[in-house]
Amino acid sequence: MGLTYARHPIRVLGVDPGLTRCGLGVVDGAPGRALTLVRVGVIRTSADDDIAARLLAIETEIESWLDACRPDVVAVERVFSQLNVRTVMGTAQAGAVAIVCAARRGLPVALHTPSEVKAAVTGNGRAGKDQVTTMVTRLLGITDPPRPADAADALALAICQIWRGGGTGLRLAAVLANRELASRDLANRGLAGGGGSA
Amino acid sequence: MGLTYARHPIRVLGVDPGLTRCGLGVVDGAPGRALTLVRVGVIRTSADDDIAARLLAIETEIESWLDACRPDVVAVERVFSQLNVRTVMGTAQAGAVAIVCAARRGLPVALHTPSEVKAAVTGNGRAGKDQVTTMVTRLLGITDPPRPADAADALALAICQIWRGGGTGLRLAAVLANRELASRDLANRGLAGGGGSA
Repeated sequence: MGLTYARHPIRVLGVDPGLTRCGLGVVDGAPGRALTLVRVGVIRTSADDDIAARLLAIETEIESWLDACRPDVVAVERVFSQLNVRTVMGTAQAGAVAIVCAARRGLPVALHTPSEVKAAVTGNGRAGKDQVTTMVTRLLGITDPPRPADAADALALAICQIWRGGGTGLRLAAVLANRELASRDLANRGLAGGGGSA
Repeated sequence: MGLTYARHPIRVLGVDPGLTRCGLGVVDGAPGRALTLVRVGVIRTSADDDIAARLLAIETEIESWLDACRPDVVAVERVFSQLNVRTVMGTAQAGAVAIVCAARRGLPVALHTPSEVKAAVTGNGRAGKDQVTTMVTRLLGITDPPRPADAADALALAICQIWRGGGTGLRLAAVLANRELASRDLANRGLAGGGGSA
């Protein structure tokens, strides 16, 4: 039963958060089974726009992907403290939007550090961007390497989640316990039962 | 006409963002007129909960305040780069949630730095927390000082916005231009015309 569950294929949306480029990648798979690329892309917002417009555009696009792809789990890159503070802020803001979009639907959210993701897809936690892209391309059995690197990173996050499961931020029980909260929120906004999401 | 407009009272929701304590304060006022406290409070989330549950709780509460108080503008503290990175991340995440909640409704979002807020209410950009609390209490004509400091800071942000207007992040035209985007987003989620917000 445990094994059956572990090998049941799941669909993961990986999010490599950023204000200028936010990578999104959806992968189907299970440990020990072939991985399938479902969708990959990048949300771009302009530094000329204000932060409200940028975050709103990111939310709108992520909502659209969640509606279209219906992932079982959302995996988001854990913000890393050694980056410069300016980058960290944009990453944290875009990541927060992705996390809230998932949590509102009762979807579990997993966080993985960049080194966990690199280690998962290349075997080396300090692998370079090219190596990650090469392995993502190989593992998904696709012809063209996903570009830009943010798109490849989002797919790597999804693969990492499929193989490793868990993730430091994944507490399914906690998220499920908050479904009631999410429902209350949606009801407040006239959304109960709306949207047609499963 | 310009003067009339400038003195027309507005309602501002100030948000002092944070994961552990997120201060919220609503003030009515206009430059040169008395300020009125509408509502003040703090959203608290536990460090034992995962980030998804915490951000969702913050979103739910802010949505509830927006529904109840119907502010004209939302003023959010601009994340400051000299704080330690761990604090900045939580502040950025909670702030992003507040910004998106406002932007989704087409409300203008203003960002003010802590020193702008301190200078607005005390005349000194380097004033201490006690001084800010004292001045907020005096300016609002209330008996009990708002506690904790996050609540007083949220009120100070709202007062700063009423007096200074603008704000580095306020680009009303840009936000209004995004109303179409917001509408599209809401329509996607079955929300068009829902919620009863003005």
